[in-house]
Amino acid sequence: MITLSGRDVLAAGAWLAGRVVRTPVVRSAALDALAGARLWLKAENLQRGGSYKYRGATLAVGRIADEGRHTGVIAQSTGNHAVAVALAARERGLRAVAVLPVDASPAKIALVHAAGADVMLAGHTLADRLEVVERLRVSTGHAVLDAYDHPDVICGQGTATLELLDEVRTRGARLDAVVLPVGGAGGLAGACLAAEGHDLAVYGVEPVGNDSLARSLVSGNRVTVVPEPTLADGLRPAQVGRLPFRLVRDVVSAVVRVDDAAIAHAVRLALYEAKLLVEPSAAAALAGALQLAAAGGLGDIGVVLTGGNVDPGTLAGILATEDPTAPGHRAGTHLTNPGHQAGTNPGRPAGTHPQEATV
Amino acid sequence: MITLSGRDVLAAGAWLAGRVVRTPVVRSAALDALAGARLWLKAENLQRGGSYKYRGATLAVGRIADEGRHTGVIAQSTGNHAVAVALAARERGLRAVAVLPVDASPAKIALVHAAGADVMLAGHTLADRLEVVERLRVSTGHAVLDAYDHPDVICGQGTATLELLDEVRTRGARLDAVVLPVGGAGGLAGACLAAEGHDLAVYGVEPVGNDSLARSLVSGNRVTVVPEPTLADGLRPAQVGRLPFRLVRDVVSAVVRVDDAAIAHAVRLALYEAKLLVEPSAAAALAGALQLAAAGGLGDIGVVLTGGNVDPGTLAGILATEDPTAPGHRAGTHLTNPGHQAGTNPGRPAGTHPQEATV
Repeated sequence: MITLSGRDVLAAGAWLAGRVVRTPVVRSAALDALAGARLWLKAENLQRGGSYKYRGATLAVGRIADEGRHTGVIAQSTGNHAVAVALAARERGLRAVAVLPVDASPAKIALVHAAGADVMLAGHTLADRLEVVERLRVSTGHAVLDAYDHPDVICGQGTATLELLDEVRTRGARLDAVVLPVGGAGGLAGACLAAEGHDLAVYGVEPVGNDSLARSLVSGNRVTVVPEPTLADGLRPAQVGRLPFRLVRDVVSAVVRVDDAAIAHAVRLALYEAKLLVEPSAAAALAGALQLAAAGGLGDIGVVLTGGNVDPGTLAGILATEDPTAPGHRAGTHLTNPGHQAGTNPGRPAGTHPQEATV
Repeated sequence: MITLSGRDVLAAGAWLAGRVVRTPVVRSAALDALAGARLWLKAENLQRGGSYKYRGATLAVGRIADEGRHTGVIAQSTGNHAVAVALAARERGLRAVAVLPVDASPAKIALVHAAGADVMLAGHTLADRLEVVERLRVSTGHAVLDAYDHPDVICGQGTATLELLDEVRTRGARLDAVVLPVGGAGGLAGACLAAEGHDLAVYGVEPVGNDSLARSLVSGNRVTVVPEPTLADGLRPAQVGRLPFRLVRDVVSAVVRVDDAAIAHAVRLALYEAKLLVEPSAAAALAGALQLAAAGGLGDIGVVLTGGNVDPGTLAGILATEDPTAPGHRAGTHLTNPGHQAGTNPGRPAGTHPQEATV
């Protein structure tokens, strides 16, 4: 059984230093005023390849290249992981094959292509993609790089939270909470590891109808959902990863659910107030953070804005829908993690966590 | 006669450290590929108040507050300078009155209001605003803070270029050129001061039909133009400032002219490739840099993205107009500065500057 700890994320951070962009942490007085809290935005939309997935891909591909047993890698993904693996593979002289759903964002398909990977489109579901991946693995002998159920990917993504904590400390402050979007929960698992030893609540955010983690926390086992349509095209896995679930289940404080209106509103807020283009999946984290802030009790909230790869057409639709000042960020509900072990993040008073299901 | 040197910008930088955001320098592989050069984007759209004007305003207002002879300040501006002065004045407990043209960007008017300043709208021209400013000065006794013809404003804006040079050096590279948009030429003058002692070409960018600096360099004296309509609402002064002109005339390498199509294209490129929302006036610098890069001979080009305050409606129009991959950045012409003294930036081979009028 794979065991990971905060030390593995520290080691990943040391190895990735200079190999990934140390992205800025952006503040906005207007967003702080809106939230009634201080938001620290980790701008991973400015990462190479346009998302924090480049961290885990660089670490994982680097290890495969160092081992020298494979001539290429296969990545299945709804987009950003494939872009990241393609870039990382090209740098190390490995072939890359990306297996994407047929409804992947055109912007992400174009990025995967531009990064030099072969693109295979395979159905709509994870099961469809995994079938193609297995066929490719047998025929090519390439290594398969899962988008979240992989220790290097988890630790790599965790370095975004690590840098965020470091930067906030450097600026003389301390986070009460960090908020990340949840697809397969690899990034959230990395954040839970990075938070080890810090007095810090970790929150996940899922789109309404794609709440596999929220349901899994209630059930105690990984639950498969039938993903509903969502603006957040990167947060649609039917199930969270096995290893991520093991890492987050007793650590994460709560999962916040956000709807498309809240996500679209958060895209507009990030754009007009923080001057950052973020993709809907990243904006989900901001939407969730605003919801948590509205519940009170959190002074300094870190938000990992995980990526910025959005189609012009999708963006135009989001910008056209609504007055940017409308309070769409109040939509949705959140759920406290019944498995959350008080004391995992010692010293945090229980009362500072929203405890009920609706904000 | 006021004399300024690179030392004054260094002193301004030391004083402003911790008082302004040290904004990130953003790279984009896609933009580099498009330019055929390495672009180093100084993201002053992430500055407090949404533009680099906050630097000069903080320095100038700070000095006025320290002197203690005035209870308030008056700023005339097409927008960002007024926002910046309002914020800086509020921090120091001074009143602020902003005199804006009646067609100022609604986003900027809202920002000035939100920062606590009184807003007076005064005609369309600089002369209209100066008349109102003089009336206010007599009636209130407040200090008048010009948007560019002021040594503190020039040195403050120059610290953006200073930080850019410092950051590029820290990352092990060296700029061949730095590119800034030109309204009253205060920022460009600050850049010329910051470039002192560096082997660095300084370029200005003006919208077509608002080329007061380009014409002044040809004539040898400040020329007044009748500003034509432009997307770049911050670059419309009919004349560059007296002190800025004195500082730039023998130092600036050339002025690039860009049209609205090139500016709009650069807004889209900054958004989709660098994930940054920049206002058209800032995008003009990127458009100019792409034009210079296309002429060849420049390896590393710094671009000061001066601000990010753009109306949602204006942005929607820009995003709707055109395929984001269309080559609009080739439009426009640039003009070599006939007064440019070879040797001002010693060691730069003359052949690395585009010497002719059209790219």
